[in-house]
Amino acid sequence: MVNVLSTMAQMQPKPGKPSLKQDDKALGAVTGIIAMEGPQAKGSLAISFPKAVILDIHKRMLHEEKSEVDDMVKDLTGELANMVLGGAKRLLEEEGYSFGLTLPSVQAGDGEPVVHPYKGPKILLPFSTDVGEFYVEICFEN
Amino acid sequence: MVNVLSTMAQMQPKPGKPSLKQDDKALGAVTGIIAMEGPQAKGSLAISFPKAVILDIHKRMLHEEKSEVDDMVKDLTGELANMVLGGAKRLLEEEGYSFGLTLPSVQAGDGEPVVHPYKGPKILLPFSTDVGEFYVEICFEN
Repeated sequence: MVNVLSTMAQMQPKPGKPSLKQDDKALGAVTGIIAMEGPQAKGSLAISFPKAVILDIHKRMLHEEKSEVDDMVKDLTGELANMVLGGAKRLLEEEGYSFGLTLPSVQAGDGEPVVHPYKGPKILLPFSTDVGEFYVEICFEN
Repeated sequence: MVNVLSTMAQMQPKPGKPSLKQDDKALGAVTGIIAMEGPQAKGSLAISFPKAVILDIHKRMLHEEKSEVDDMVKDLTGELANMVLGGAKRLLEEEGYSFGLTLPSVQAGDGEPVVHPYKGPKILLPFSTDVGEFYVEICFEN
């Protein structure tokens, strides 16, 4: 995540304290979700951005100011989920896991449920930026 | 983990399904534990080997047959914990986390409590080998 955003958006997000997420509420205004399905494990990764953060990333990466989470901003969120998961997949494959990925699904709405495709524990990793925090959720089937 | 054992012991452990570990019982006869302490997060990694598995690794790495978990086998367990954590630390540092590590502590005893230094959820990753399974536990402070 940090690699992706430092390369693509010249941002240096700072990771915060991991925790187990206890509910399904989206912590941001827009969330990209990708399922990972493999013979050893199934799970998913979600990345949620508050509006101020994703609009700042949009401006930095695409050099265009937006005031709302429109379809272009949603597409960018899906792309970011893809890039983060690509890195995670490579690391997991080094450990012997193999996964197929689905296309990212993107949902908008603060506090709406984030629907992970499998039931299981969700690890929440916060990252802080100059304009606010964003969140990575990793869910694995129990 | 897979890298360490394939390089050092010509083994190809296969990862299994991750889960949340619900109790403190050691899943193997010998367990190495290392604490990770950083400004953003605190946690620990434990690696537990059943007797047959650690004796097989000992034979492959040190070319010496053992029939019991003696001090040399315990030292090897601590070294393996160190090597696995070294890899994990590097990956986490790429994500912006920084950690100091403690020296590994090693305990022996099937079903004895595995005492992680911080209270929090424990992710259990099983790996299978020709002579049995072993277990990596990742605990992070809540």
